[in-house]
Amino acid sequence: MRVYDIIRKKREGMELTDGEIRFFVDGYTEGSIPDYQASAFLMAAFLQGLSFQETFSLTDAIVHSGKVLDLSRIPGIKADKHSTGGVGDGVSLAVAPVAAACGLKVAMMSGRGLGHTGGTLDKLESIQGYRCDLSEGEFARVVERVGCSIIGQTAELAPADKKLYALRDVTATVDKKELIAASILGKKLAEGIDCLVLDVKCGSGAFMKTEADARELASLMVRIARERGKKVTALITDMDAPLGNAVGNSMEVIEAIDCLRGRAPQDYTELVYELSSRMLLLAGYGTPEECRTQCERAVESGAAFAKFKEMVGAQGGNVGWIEDTELFPRAPCSRIVRAERDGFISHMDAEGYGTAALLLGAGRQKKEDAIDYSAGIRILKKTGDEVLEGDGIAVLFASDEALFPAAEKRLLASVRYSDAPPPARPLVLGVVG
Amino acid sequence: MRVYDIIRKKREGMELTDGEIRFFVDGYTEGSIPDYQASAFLMAAFLQGLSFQETFSLTDAIVHSGKVLDLSRIPGIKADKHSTGGVGDGVSLAVAPVAAACGLKVAMMSGRGLGHTGGTLDKLESIQGYRCDLSEGEFARVVERVGCSIIGQTAELAPADKKLYALRDVTATVDKKELIAASILGKKLAEGIDCLVLDVKCGSGAFMKTEADARELASLMVRIARERGKKVTALITDMDAPLGNAVGNSMEVIEAIDCLRGRAPQDYTELVYELSSRMLLLAGYGTPEECRTQCERAVESGAAFAKFKEMVGAQGGNVGWIEDTELFPRAPCSRIVRAERDGFISHMDAEGYGTAALLLGAGRQKKEDAIDYSAGIRILKKTGDEVLEGDGIAVLFASDEALFPAAEKRLLASVRYSDAPPPARPLVLGVVG
Repeated sequence: MRVYDIIRKKREGMELTDGEIRFFVDGYTEGSIPDYQASAFLMAAFLQGLSFQETFSLTDAIVHSGKVLDLSRIPGIKADKHSTGGVGDGVSLAVAPVAAACGLKVAMMSGRGLGHTGGTLDKLESIQGYRCDLSEGEFARVVERVGCSIIGQTAELAPADKKLYALRDVTATVDKKELIAASILGKKLAEGIDCLVLDVKCGSGAFMKTEADARELASLMVRIARERGKKVTALITDMDAPLGNAVGNSMEVIEAIDCLRGRAPQDYTELVYELSSRMLLLAGYGTPEECRTQCERAVESGAAFAKFKEMVGAQGGNVGWIEDTELFPRAPCSRIVRAERDGFISHMDAEGYGTAALLLGAGRQKKEDAIDYSAGIRILKKTGDEVLEGDGIAVLFASDEALFPAAEKRLLASVRYSDAPPPARPLVLGVVG
Repeated sequence: MRVYDIIRKKREGMELTDGEIRFFVDGYTEGSIPDYQASAFLMAAFLQGLSFQETFSLTDAIVHSGKVLDLSRIPGIKADKHSTGGVGDGVSLAVAPVAAACGLKVAMMSGRGLGHTGGTLDKLESIQGYRCDLSEGEFARVVERVGCSIIGQTAELAPADKKLYALRDVTATVDKKELIAASILGKKLAEGIDCLVLDVKCGSGAFMKTEADARELASLMVRIARERGKKVTALITDMDAPLGNAVGNSMEVIEAIDCLRGRAPQDYTELVYELSSRMLLLAGYGTPEECRTQCERAVESGAAFAKFKEMVGAQGGNVGWIEDTELFPRAPCSRIVRAERDGFISHMDAEGYGTAALLLGAGRQKKEDAIDYSAGIRILKKTGDEVLEGDGIAVLFASDEALFPAAEKRLLASVRYSDAPPPARPLVLGVVG
């Protein structure tokens, strides 16, 4: 078998066999297939598409490019949740302890932020001492003892995806559903979990801009995960406006803590309950209503907050900061951004808010960039809110006043106004599987 | 400007600006754009196509990636001829001295064989001492003094094409008309010539399998060369069967010498006259008939043969071999291939004959392979000839008997028979420009 022939076959739009896809993934992972052939293949796959069977084979080859975690010795049902990425979407931090407080074992491997979207690991690392780099043994022990653990993907897991993603990122071959599905599931299915809830974001701040695209990606991922014997559901959720009121790393940790204490913004709390109760539902914890009630009680009783604190402690984080969020370092500089006219906020471009946060130092423009954990945006007014010209709509936080003008300009350009209230947009746009 | 955005734009099927294409070619040539981004771009261009303007820009950027030869100090009209590659197609060796004997200055830079097609340089190097690696100064002097010179492309000329072609060769992005046109003309237009005759091959032994494809490629190249101020014509010629009766390096040199002495096979001689008289026509040497007559006289008078000898001598080759072709080393082993049934030969797959010659040692399977100059095939029967079972249809030559079985099998599989004579196929299928 020659990689040249595989590239050529895909270039001609023909369907590759499982063996050909495996040959490509294994060869690229071990280094016998060079980057320049892999990128030609990826572009051919991007433009010619992959069939379901090809996408399934690609996913499976990525799963088996490294170690597959075995969590079977941990009693109970192992679950995870994955989001395709959004702005202000720190809900994983709350979902994991809520589901764990209800009895699930949440084994969560997360990623870092890139571009305008945030990453769960960066958020957690804003907590003094928190370690995302647990060994697999440590990870399994925290999952077993605490009930939830959130770490970064280990080097042994799905190494093909790391290499392929890095290449796609620089060759304009990222935003293709088949490649996205194989990348997400190639990692998730190597985690040794039983149940998976996928949060497929849709709208201006998401990779999938339309509901149709989001639904297609969700269906593809559900079908693949199910054929590999997993219990899986995908929610299609709104990411047209940022979620909650915080964009930025430590600000989003604080928002998650607020949620676990029952005092987060309504949209944020609603999504936490939607996702955690879906995890319970997959695990057979009762009817949808019963699962929802269990999640709400876990918050009301303080059990979910206690789980979060326990997890942070088990992973080396400063629990004092969780108990008193005033201890998180605050940005030295702030600036209020004000409404430019009277009216209703009819649209907030979430990608614009994400980019503004990036400009403030909250994210990475390049992979090597350092993050300012305290930088970010507090959102004062959201879509549907009525404002008068000059009202504060957001507060920017940064380490340097010089960062404000560009971020403010980007934020203001992301807001549209109307004279009448805009139609309400539901948070959950659909459920697949 | 970022190469990522250029790849993405082409991926989306949008037209790139001249500046964007130049940025890509220059960046790749100097090494600031890595192979893996270039190959993603090439696959996107392959699948989305390039507009005429993009192809023109690509050609021009390749021309200007290195030095552009200035032959203006040589008096007279400078001309070249280029073939897209075929089997048994050694006519450049005869065309150059015929045109030179008529007064043109033929400045020819040629390539090596790869795959089933032969290369002019390999053929010439079968002449003891012949140097294809003249410096630009030496080249110009031979062109001026003798009237023709055939050398390999120098490293300073169109370096972008060398790098891009090597990458296309391993990423399945070779056979796309826009890329082929830019590659051929990127080199030819850097040669400092005034007139160019293109021989676009068509049929089983050519890269363009259909006449429509060949015509499209020819039109594209003629349009580009003309917009760059060159006098240009393209002939679309048949390469369904091998040209002439010889396939192999020294055998093709001998066939060229036979042609210059007026005793080569009819199809071979005809193509030599077609191409050389087109060069004269472009240079304004008279009507088509007058140009043809001049070429025929150059052969009949011995002037063309003398030019060839003079060129070989000027480039260090052993002129004695040209005068007495019996001095060329002969292959120690030969085998006659016989017709498998009675009938007419209705089809010879030229690629099959080329591959058989390759298996005998006449070509390279990999770039590093050494060539056996004496290996090859003498064709005894061609398409349209009547044969009886057991008649010799070809003779194989090689350095080792062990090479015969595979080559014979390949050759026999390339021949088809019919009970009635097949319709005659014209040699020149069309003229563009």
